[in-house]
Amino acid sequence: MIIERNMEHTDLPLVVIPACFPSMAPYLERGLDVIATKARVRMHTDMTLDLDEIMARLENANVAMTTGIHFNNAMLDALAPTLRCLTFGGTGVANFVDVNHAHDLDIMVCNAVHYGDNAVAEHTIALLFEITHKAGRLDVRTRAQGWPGSDITEIGGMTMGIVGFGGIGHRVAELAHGLGMKLIVWARHPDTETLDRLGVERADSIDDVFAKADVVSPHLALNDATRGIITARHLDMLHPGAIFLNTARAELVEQGALERRLNNGDIFAGLDVFDPEPLPDDAPLRDCPNTVLTPHVAWRSDKALAGIVDQNIRSVVAFLDGESYNIV
Amino acid sequence: MIIERNMEHTDLPLVVIPACFPSMAPYLERGLDVIATKARVRMHTDMTLDLDEIMARLENANVAMTTGIHFNNAMLDALAPTLRCLTFGGTGVANFVDVNHAHDLDIMVCNAVHYGDNAVAEHTIALLFEITHKAGRLDVRTRAQGWPGSDITEIGGMTMGIVGFGGIGHRVAELAHGLGMKLIVWARHPDTETLDRLGVERADSIDDVFAKADVVSPHLALNDATRGIITARHLDMLHPGAIFLNTARAELVEQGALERRLNNGDIFAGLDVFDPEPLPDDAPLRDCPNTVLTPHVAWRSDKALAGIVDQNIRSVVAFLDGESYNIV
Repeated sequence: MIIERNMEHTDLPLVVIPACFPSMAPYLERGLDVIATKARVRMHTDMTLDLDEIMARLENANVAMTTGIHFNNAMLDALAPTLRCLTFGGTGVANFVDVNHAHDLDIMVCNAVHYGDNAVAEHTIALLFEITHKAGRLDVRTRAQGWPGSDITEIGGMTMGIVGFGGIGHRVAELAHGLGMKLIVWARHPDTETLDRLGVERADSIDDVFAKADVVSPHLALNDATRGIITARHLDMLHPGAIFLNTARAELVEQGALERRLNNGDIFAGLDVFDPEPLPDDAPLRDCPNTVLTPHVAWRSDKALAGIVDQNIRSVVAFLDGESYNIV
Repeated sequence: MIIERNMEHTDLPLVVIPACFPSMAPYLERGLDVIATKARVRMHTDMTLDLDEIMARLENANVAMTTGIHFNNAMLDALAPTLRCLTFGGTGVANFVDVNHAHDLDIMVCNAVHYGDNAVAEHTIALLFEITHKAGRLDVRTRAQGWPGSDITEIGGMTMGIVGFGGIGHRVAELAHGLGMKLIVWARHPDTETLDRLGVERADSIDDVFAKADVVSPHLALNDATRGIITARHLDMLHPGAIFLNTARAELVEQGALERRLNNGDIFAGLDVFDPEPLPDDAPLRDCPNTVLTPHVAWRSDKALAGIVDQNIRSVVAFLDGESYNIV
């Protein structure tokens, strides 16, 4: 479906949404009115990754609002005569657009930030609950087997170890604190005020976290300094019964190390991120014991989607007003 | 297996554990040393509900440590010549023993209390996470279907409505507060200090809770005053998308009312308790949409089991010392 506003006002700039994820569509549609006070708007409500189709839809656009579309430099060159602003529904736009090349072409690139901090932190805790209380898998077993007996494990009193203390790590600490967990945190630049408020033990090293915690969850951005920062040696320091969570990036962990540690059969893992994604059908991780695997959904909450769209629309409005918001 | 201590000291009183749940056995075994300083001890490590077998095992016992065994009055009469103390691994001993009849026979009855407050409160939150974040069911789908897309719903900012504010309701309120939920509570005798500390809105009525909350969870004991206290009319007040949780007792809800409300398809439910239990294979509830069902496991945590055994052992030691602990 195509939704258009103001198309008769050919003097106004043209904002095009060439494709969108179904779950974002309602939020975008609600936001169109704001943009339509300043521009023509054309929104395609379906999702496509067909690059020819996307380029056709973006013809003459001055602003492109996109999510999940990889733009190569040839595409940017072709759009450059009219395109002045490109928004991206996420944080890591650098994986989808060569930002320097866009800047050379005088195309402003805007992303969205921190929209998912609470969603990802909650999903981290959701994985912890599924490992300890097993509600979802007991639901499946209750339907299949009638009345399966099962013991559960309490979270309160466990020690949560957090590696990295940005927006998400910070929120995980708050949620874990609220559940009666003790906290140990390692970060290069810790926020001392929050550490003190939550009564957090500050770890001397990543080793320290893995040696002392019952649950370990990394919350670091992936870059050259953090790729593989969690090694097989760290995972070997986990005590039997410990839980490793990952809602950040699979590549933070040394390749193959988690599978090897899990195959000892004495630790648990709750994972929302994989390398590669989608997780292949024959990925060794699928055969490891004691795991809860979710398909990179931690960021996809109602509020996070609304937050992304809200920030992207603010960026477009700012651009149309000659100002700037969330420029990369 | 039978574990015995001190059996050669026939002058000492005899404590018998005639049967036990496998998950309680390790905690009981660890506690035997304390009792063995004052009594002979015989522990049967298997579970049986065969009453003849149980009576044979309890022959000449002065103290019986039991869980889940229904004693009728004829059994109590037969045990009365020697039995002076009976402990029960749970709170609701009145459903298993006629306490007045036991008292008439000079048998002291002891139970365990509040051991499961945090476990049940955590499981209530676990059901909420499974409804909103679906980690367990996404795990099953990821294994079956590869890489299923899914949106999730954030808990933070939702309003949790709690009906009843004893030990468990209190703890649910603390956990929900820690997750960034707003709170509305109805209770006959609310704990004003806690309500203030957690910034709780005090509801005028149960109606008020159902009308205002996004999530409603009853935490009342079941008795003549509370049976069916939640009616079809209350459930009709839930807004579309609302969530009903029950880790207390199914009989708090008017019979059939929850199934009818769920079949509208616009609310969700997370349930750990059913009427009857085990939940029959043909129970209509199994066919209702939007439910997460767990088989009455909320109390069965590691710490709760340890707490029950700890309290029961304290009761036995107190009895042996001529004192009392947790007498019903």
